Amino acid sequence: MATSSEGPDMAGDAPDSPKPRSHGRLSNSVSMQPRDLMAPQRVRGAWRVKVVTLFPEAFPGTLGLSLTGKALEMGLWALEAIDLRLFGEGRHRNVDDTPAGGGAGMVLRADVVARALAAAARGAPADRARWPVVLLSPRGRPFTQAKAREWAVAEGLTLLCGRFEGVDQRVIDAFGIEEVSLGDFVMTGGEIAAQAMIDATVRLLPGVLGNMASTEKESFSDGLLEHPQYTRPQIWEGREIPAVLQSGHHGEIAKWRRAEAERLTQERRPDLWTARLVPKG
Amino acid sequence: MATSSEGPDMAGDAPDSPKPRSHGRLSNSVSMQPRDLMAPQRVRGAWRVKVVTLFPEAFPGTLGLSLTGKALEMGLWALEAIDLRLFGEGRHRNVDDTPAGGGAGMVLRADVVARALAAAARGAPADRARWPVVLLSPRGRPFTQAKAREWAVAEGLTLLCGRFEGVDQRVIDAFGIEEVSLGDFVMTGGEIAAQAMIDATVRLLPGVLGNMASTEKESFSDGLLEHPQYTRPQIWEGREIPAVLQSGHHGEIAKWRRAEAERLTQERRPDLWTARLVPKG
Repeated sequence: MATSSEGPDMAGDAPDSPKPRSHGRLSNSVSMQPRDLMAPQRVRGAWRVKVVTLFPEAFPGTLGLSLTGKALEMGLWALEAIDLRLFGEGRHRNVDDTPAGGGAGMVLRADVVARALAAAARGAPADRARWPVVLLSPRGRPFTQAKAREWAVAEGLTLLCGRFEGVDQRVIDAFGIEEVSLGDFVMTGGEIAAQAMIDATVRLLPGVLGNMASTEKESFSDGLLEHPQYTRPQIWEGREIPAVLQSGHHGEIAKWRRAEAERLTQERRPDLWTARLVPKG
Repeated sequence: MATSSEGPDMAGDAPDSPKPRSHGRLSNSVSMQPRDLMAPQRVRGAWRVKVVTLFPEAFPGTLGLSLTGKALEMGLWALEAIDLRLFGEGRHRNVDDTPAGGGAGMVLRADVVARALAAAARGAPADRARWPVVLLSPRGRPFTQAKAREWAVAEGLTLLCGRFEGVDQRVIDAFGIEEVSLGDFVMTGGEIAAQAMIDATVRLLPGVLGNMASTEKESFSDGLLEHPQYTRPQIWEGREIPAVLQSGHHGEIAKWRRAEAERLTQERRPDLWTARLVPKG
């Protein structure tokens, strides 16, 4: 298991299985890895994500642009899209069927999903703490910054994108799949949710943000929303930057920003504000 | 104002401004519109979304696939990506500057953002209820299914994708911009968040889900997570579909599903469960 996260099977393609699409450098030279990535026993290579989806062409999508795209090119992380359709049943490669007990919609079959997850499991450790296997579903626990941090220190991640009415519960149980939700809303599928979670996670990998990482003040880290920001020009359409921000008094500026952050949090997120005041038992 | 949401300026391009990228049919023939879309005074044409972004090439992205992609092709909605860079300052088209009062990161300039939003405002009603103008930001109120429903009955929507440390507060105030957050996590930018919100909204437009719309049981509509689902094969790897689902007793099946939905909600979403039990004052 100690060596399962490295080696030539990074792309997960065995001769007897459909070839998945891969993005990023397939083999990362050791000299390119930042120090943190070389920590023994934790991350042996770049962080990897495998996405099981009916729309492999959706990846890398927006993740191929900007900071995440640059990091992908640099080999700081790698992405593999696995086409669920290729593991379907019969001539038409069916992946779903009607729900047992009746009801609308279609349910992804346990056997089909199991074959795709088995393909995704190649080259990944079986320990779910080292390599979480996740179903994107509105039934899941909400995705948070804490979850992104947890995933960023794993070796990699497998994301199963839901479609239709759901996934047969037996394959969720058999594979120890964790269900995670992007939020309290319904989407046509899990692909964009997967991209959102990958973006939030990749952003935390060593080297991705460069020297922005150390200096930036994280939202949510102190349980408050960010204070308002201003920049040049000093007067715009008759509106001036608040005087305190131009005073040069660092103490006063910090006090003003703190007060504004508290005001905004109370106004917009009474849930966060209450959570700060009521310590958990 | 009554006619401002239709006409040839759908793509928002005036001769004196940079030409934005448009997706979907620019003019929708009336005969293609489902009845609901033709309701007088509410939606005169297809639902439209304008996205102000430094990465216009991210659109339509995943939204161009699957159900949302088919609906885009059919002209059930239209998407316009507006390149913020084109409205930048000077030879280098700078869009951002350092925060007043100090601190890390960069802030998007009020004047630059204002020019882009003015371009986006062409052909859109000024009434924010009919056409919300939204900044994607972790400081915002959380996006929910209720918000998607609200946007879906508007004529259209303008989304401003944040990057860097934030946006100058003065342009947020001046344009009556609503800040909305995808969730309690930090992303490299607002583009994927925009796609997630557009997906959830487009899904609710008349005709997009076809006849799935009427029959499907919405998550969150009764404040409970969905019960587990099963489908063929009846036995998979020694695991059988629960007997009750194969009993044919509709009353028993409904009871079992309700009990499972309540168990899952208590387990995974104590917040939703508590909200059900404690009526709001």
